[in-house]
Amino acid sequence: MRPTIYLFGDSITEASFADGGWGAALANHFCRTLDVVLRGYSGYNTRWALKVLDRVFPTVGHDGAAAAPPVALTVFFGANDACLPDRYAAFQHVPLDEYKQNLHSIVSSLKKQWPKTLILLITPPPIDEDGRLRHPFVENPSGFPERTNEAAGSFAKACVETAEECGIPVVDLWTRMQQYPDWRKAYLSDGLHLTKEGNKVVFEEVMKKLEERGLSLEKLKADLPLFADIDHDDPLKAFQQ
Amino acid sequence: MRPTIYLFGDSITEASFADGGWGAALANHFCRTLDVVLRGYSGYNTRWALKVLDRVFPTVGHDGAAAAPPVALTVFFGANDACLPDRYAAFQHVPLDEYKQNLHSIVSSLKKQWPKTLILLITPPPIDEDGRLRHPFVENPSGFPERTNEAAGSFAKACVETAEECGIPVVDLWTRMQQYPDWRKAYLSDGLHLTKEGNKVVFEEVMKKLEERGLSLEKLKADLPLFADIDHDDPLKAFQQ
Repeated sequence: MRPTIYLFGDSITEASFADGGWGAALANHFCRTLDVVLRGYSGYNTRWALKVLDRVFPTVGHDGAAAAPPVALTVFFGANDACLPDRYAAFQHVPLDEYKQNLHSIVSSLKKQWPKTLILLITPPPIDEDGRLRHPFVENPSGFPERTNEAAGSFAKACVETAEECGIPVVDLWTRMQQYPDWRKAYLSDGLHLTKEGNKVVFEEVMKKLEERGLSLEKLKADLPLFADIDHDDPLKAFQQ
Repeated sequence: MRPTIYLFGDSITEASFADGGWGAALANHFCRTLDVVLRGYSGYNTRWALKVLDRVFPTVGHDGAAAAPPVALTVFFGANDACLPDRYAAFQHVPLDEYKQNLHSIVSSLKKQWPKTLILLITPPPIDEDGRLRHPFVENPSGFPERTNEAAGSFAKACVETAEECGIPVVDLWTRMQQYPDWRKAYLSDGLHLTKEGNKVVFEEVMKKLEERGLSLEKLKADLPLFADIDHDDPLKAFQQ
């Protein structure tokens, strides 16, 4: 069977198969080579993710045998951990130190289960505070956003450090997106979630990391004969085993 | 683990995770309930599909145990079978009688392996012959398209009959699309493949059939607690097993 890539994260992962989404773009890119499997959980922070880890990725498969290891797995949390502790989304907040420790625990648990799987961290995106005030999740008469770009940046930095400490790759989305002057409007739809252009940035950055580690169409084996390789004069030849 | 829906078919299935695609729309709709797994093979007809069936869906899983049955499976072939036998894509052509027999064989093989799986047939879409002349796959100086709408209609009719004979549901895409006067431009990008609007029709028609048989968000169990169900005063309560 085809190898699998799991996408594990919060709402930015859960929504990644919506129109123009980065998950769908990965599935389309690898349409004959890999299965891209969605494990996005809207609203979750690393504390909650850690509580459910063994139910997201069972240690045994459907029939009691060891679950087949995925070739790659994206871990994309931090946008909810970074909610401020004194604003309306405080129940999602996780202190920075605990966030970093939780990420370490998630990575080490996955590495223990699947030593050969490529684990790729993704930092939270930057926050457009005006966008959050215009698009709050609940009524917010305080005049203060529940997330700030500065706080998201601290969590992004901790995510990059964790990747370095674990010796695994990371997409620093917070930094990458802000390299483009119009990032607030171009990449964010509500100050937090991604526009189509924002999704495209995630797709491209994830693809770079996958390709650097050999997960490219050139190196992966296509599932079953490709149309271009079928002999017009003797099509069935391609299907002999 | 989550139940699976397989999408099995030709290029219209293979491309179903491209921007606005019907496969991605299904994956997005079921993002917390089902895994939508792509098994589209560009250019394939039912003769070739039948040759590879046991490699698309292995009878045993990764570890020698029986493969977990999917809850549903779409079988979407016929657009290539319906290539005319005296035009440039003749090597993809399958005679109408054999197409029907092949579909029967595919369905009975899948039903034998997975008796409880919902198998859903989808007919080929209508053909815009002018579109095919404007967008041929190879140079086509003949002035005649390699597919006609009439031939596609015969194959669609055979697909509908097969579904009735097997007692399984079918989406008659050929008929459904032509109910809209501007179907050629609205639904087809090159006279054969689907625009975003065409993909939307497939998504909606497939959803209707799935929901009629209980595969709806109302009836399926969500994977792990939903954000809306988490107590703001005691979030971890939701994660106790």
